[in-house]
Amino acid sequence: MPERGKGSARLAILISGRGSNMVALADAVADGRIPSADLAVVVSDQPDAAGLIRANERGLETLVIERHGRPREEHDREIVSELKARSVDLVCLAGYMRVLSREFLDAFRNCILNIHPSLLPSFPGLDAQKQALDHGVKWTGCTVHYVDETLDGGPIIAQRVVPIMNDDTVEDLSARILAEEHRLYPEAVALVLENAKLWQADI
Amino acid sequence: MPERGKGSARLAILISGRGSNMVALADAVADGRIPSADLAVVVSDQPDAAGLIRANERGLETLVIERHGRPREEHDREIVSELKARSVDLVCLAGYMRVLSREFLDAFRNCILNIHPSLLPSFPGLDAQKQALDHGVKWTGCTVHYVDETLDGGPIIAQRVVPIMNDDTVEDLSARILAEEHRLYPEAVALVLENAKLWQADI
Repeated sequence: MPERGKGSARLAILISGRGSNMVALADAVADGRIPSADLAVVVSDQPDAAGLIRANERGLETLVIERHGRPREEHDREIVSELKARSVDLVCLAGYMRVLSREFLDAFRNCILNIHPSLLPSFPGLDAQKQALDHGVKWTGCTVHYVDETLDGGPIIAQRVVPIMNDDTVEDLSARILAEEHRLYPEAVALVLENAKLWQADI
Repeated sequence: MPERGKGSARLAILISGRGSNMVALADAVADGRIPSADLAVVVSDQPDAAGLIRANERGLETLVIERHGRPREEHDREIVSELKARSVDLVCLAGYMRVLSREFLDAFRNCILNIHPSLLPSFPGLDAQKQALDHGVKWTGCTVHYVDETLDGGPIIAQRVVPIMNDDTVEDLSARILAEEHRLYPEAVALVLENAKLWQADI
């Protein structure tokens, strides 16, 4: 967490779909499980993302920033500009289905988190739950990690473990993992903010 | 398990060192946690493997089959010949530090198990515990899998999960995983033999 000084950390959440992890984070900010944090804005690249409705219901500011065929860098530049305008400290990807440009990564270096539905480094990339079932592992889980240039390969912050049952479908397993994601992501964000506070106290 | 008909399955265990997983399997055969099985022979490629003493203390037959600079295929051919002479059904690798030749794999196709100190497919190969610590995962474990031509990539039979603590050394973590290996390997062998019995009942 860079130079956020005193006061609350300002979070942004990026979504593309239903935003269930966005809701989990928003609820955790609201009820104090993520202390000293404000949810500054929810950004979607999809105008019809169901998560936008859920964010509005919670009184959160929402922004739709569509790509409109622009190069990734240009699209990201608009998002970064909106986040900087709101003094965002920490960016949480929550089902945001686009790869971030180098420029976005540099603008929020070490301040972008993602949640992934596997025990990384197993099963990075798309369809992690199906990958796990196809591979025949007996345990999988979810991982919150820092986002860098690698595919789901940035430093790991927290993980939770989920069992795989013999007759699991992709839907069964995805639902079981998702329930743990909703617990893990708030824990991980609280941990990151707490550590940032400790570092600042050290300085 | 091929054509073992009625009666007990005959196990062989291959070691190169202390053989702690060999002891765990031998004890589980002796006390019935692996039912309907006999431990036919313990084979070491190292004449000074500490596991040989522990096997002898338990009254098990032991064989030292050194490589003596021979090609892998030739060394393996001698081992396979000794296993076949003892009507071995299932081969359990327990810290056996050599890659098996295609010929060995073909002679016991789908009847060779290995235990690996990680939640595969994460961290195959050597020093899996150090790999896990270096990667920063929060959970690791151990995996029993069938051995095929891939590096620790054969079908997974069973896994156990182990937490990683903040201040773990490689030794701390290895000891914690090893304790679970000693529980997992007997469970996995019992499962394989039970399934083999079910298949035979189906025929």
